[in-house]
Amino acid sequence: VAKRLEKFKTTIFTQMSMLAIKHGAINLGQGFPNFDGPEFVKEAAIQAINAGKNQYARGYGVPELNSAIAERFLKDSGLQVDPEKEVTVTSGCTEAIAATILGLINPGDEVILFAPFYDSYEATLSMAGANVKAITLRPPDFSVPFEELKAAVSKNTRAIMINTPHNPTGKMFTREELEFIAALCKENDVLLFSDEVYDKLVFEADHISMASIPGMYERTVTLNSLGKTFSLTGWKIGWAIAPPHLTWGVRQAHSFLTFATCTPMQAAAAAALRAPDSYYEELRRDYGAKKALLVNGLKDAGFIVYPSSGTYFVMVDHTPFGFDNDIEFCEYLIREVGVVAIPPSVFYLNPEDGKKLVRFTFCKDDDTLIAAVERMKTKL
Amino acid sequence: VAKRLEKFKTTIFTQMSMLAIKHGAINLGQGFPNFDGPEFVKEAAIQAINAGKNQYARGYGVPELNSAIAERFLKDSGLQVDPEKEVTVTSGCTEAIAATILGLINPGDEVILFAPFYDSYEATLSMAGANVKAITLRPPDFSVPFEELKAAVSKNTRAIMINTPHNPTGKMFTREELEFIAALCKENDVLLFSDEVYDKLVFEADHISMASIPGMYERTVTLNSLGKTFSLTGWKIGWAIAPPHLTWGVRQAHSFLTFATCTPMQAAAAAALRAPDSYYEELRRDYGAKKALLVNGLKDAGFIVYPSSGTYFVMVDHTPFGFDNDIEFCEYLIREVGVVAIPPSVFYLNPEDGKKLVRFTFCKDDDTLIAAVERMKTKL
Ligand SMILES: CSCCC(=O)C(=O)O
Ligand SMILES: CSCCC(=O)C(=O)O
Repeated sequence: VAKRLEKFKTTIFTQMSMLAIKHGAINLGQGFPNFDGPEFVKEAAIQAINAGKNQYARGYGVPELNSAIAERFLKDSGLQVDPEKEVTVTSGCTEAIAATILGLINPGDEVILFAPFYDSYEATLSMAGANVKAITLRPPDFSVPFEELKAAVSKNTRAIMINTPHNPTGKMFTREELEFIAALCKENDVLLFSDEVYDKLVFEADHISMASIPGMYERTVTLNSLGKTFSLTGWKIGWAIAPPHLTWGVRQAHSFLTFATCTPMQAAAAAALRAPDSYYEELRRDYGAKKALLVNGLKDAGFIVYPSSGTYFVMVDHTPFGFDNDIEFCEYLIREVGVVAIPPSVFYLNPEDGKKLVRFTFCKDDDTLIAAVERMKTKL
Repeated sequence: VAKRLEKFKTTIFTQMSMLAIKHGAINLGQGFPNFDGPEFVKEAAIQAINAGKNQYARGYGVPELNSAIAERFLKDSGLQVDPEKEVTVTSGCTEAIAATILGLINPGDEVILFAPFYDSYEATLSMAGANVKAITLRPPDFSVPFEELKAAVSKNTRAIMINTPHNPTGKMFTREELEFIAALCKENDVLLFSDEVYDKLVFEADHISMASIPGMYERTVTLNSLGKTFSLTGWKIGWAIAPPHLTWGVRQAHSFLTFATCTPMQAAAAAALRAPDSYYEELRRDYGAKKALLVNGLKDAGFIVYPSSGTYFVMVDHTPFGFDNDIEFCEYLIREVGVVAIPPSVFYLNPEDGKKLVRFTFCKDDDTLIAAVERMKTKL
């Protein structure tokens, strides 16, 4: 294996999903629904296949999807973007992240992350030869430590990367936090990469897109995807929205990482993004109920549960059960309780920072959530 | 844009396909069929979507596809591989190439290509920080210059990359050439990356997989895909086959480039790979007839046509028409004749080497090929 990937292990998502299968445990680990996406989106994919939309798509996206993404972004963030020059369709948001980083970051550039972070951020930054700094968000509210962040920005800082709503904590960056980060970016001429794949899964405040903070659009790459919003995580349709000079870098990397994305699924994604508002409202309502179900169950089982205001994840403190760290706790949970969760220490530069924590997902049907809670209440 | 991608332009495939649309020209440029893939494969995708196979696949491939790939490789090359440890499913062969290179090549490693080469090879090697050497294959037969190749191998050589059948020339590496390259790899402890996406499109001899040359499997990554064989280039299903120690590197890069590949299309790909032999025979026959149609037409139009024994491409010499280079010729061809071809100078480290050549594809229905030939015969 190349040196740039030496320090990384099999992703925790693969490890945990395979353990879930092996032990027949209930999988509240990796974030994929155990229910299906909407019929009208599946129908659109089937129609595209039958209509013969099965050859290479245009590299940066089929025109109808680029347009649908731009329309959606206008509705959501108030920003008008050119679908032809500012939108790039990718094979999932993971590819959008890789293309952004490999397309825009040079060896030796410094990039600031907030820990805990989705593991691909650190790995693709390592592929790009970047120096990674991480600012740790700490429980109970995982708020941004302003002074620490400010002190971390140096003349070598090329980009700050955020994820709001935030996986794995369920935190949403507040307007105050976004504005503080924005001011730092503007003062220091720093780019901002904003992963917003959970933007529709919010339970309290509305999502705020970093690109909508005044003066930020021109230095921001906004990353999003279809999978979470439409319960079709396996379709792997993602995208990056950025001004033309940044889109150029993203597209160049994308051209050589995958060239183009699955054509019929792009046609279906365009149909999905034109869903009526009622679709999004229902999604929020459903996930709100699931969250309540899981959160109450976790509290009853004895966890310290931290607030989750977005995503389909909730972070808890497992220390009431007396385990030394998250890995040991999760192993016990799989083997003795029959539930899979994600040990978040892998999402920190310093694993120690995550050792008291465990992440659960509630993107499962109610029966599954009830059964998992029942197991934890009786066996923990 | 990051320095690693500075020297690359918009891929020629995107440029030319967009010009084809703009000028309403007949597109014999980028290699995608203008006819559809087989019904039974499309039906399998539709069934998978309807069966709810729409969530994240296992990162390295859905088990049924990994198995189908291993079975196919056994039939084709005689090699038994472990589908769980030696097969990685990717989002098209372009991603398999990127994952192989980013997963196994370190900055400063030397990698030898044969020019002309598919443009992503050089771009992903640049992303990996490799030093690229290119050995030029020259018309009329594009054979490997043995002494030049031997002299190019140094103690820094980490890998040789081949493509057989070869895009853009239509050349197939002979057994003698494969054995010569294999011997060099074994003597100098060099890896071999073998892109074999056109392995089923052969018109004379059978395809020989580099991994089947004695002693080579353990140092070879074999790259292949669904798109060309099943006329479904837009589905973006590719794979890498390699011994476990090399698969580890490929999978690590893949995990962070895209994580996983479109789930329902993987299910369909598994069905496709179990097609009866008659499917492959018919494919060869059909493409053989298309090749004859185009080759005869190009000769009649006045080109010097080089032999194509595999792929769906044919390389010609355009100098009888008096243009200075391939770009100028292709521009004239689009504007004045209404046919799009690919100028291959972008596939060389030294563009001069390709300036007399032009590539045409014959993966189009007969009417399209006949119309293109007619235009060239009358307007050139
Ligand atoms: C490849 S897993 C992507 C993110 C996610 O679903 C998770 O964090 O569980
Ligand atoms: C992204 S294009 C892939 C290869 C091909 O089809 C071509 O060379 O035309």
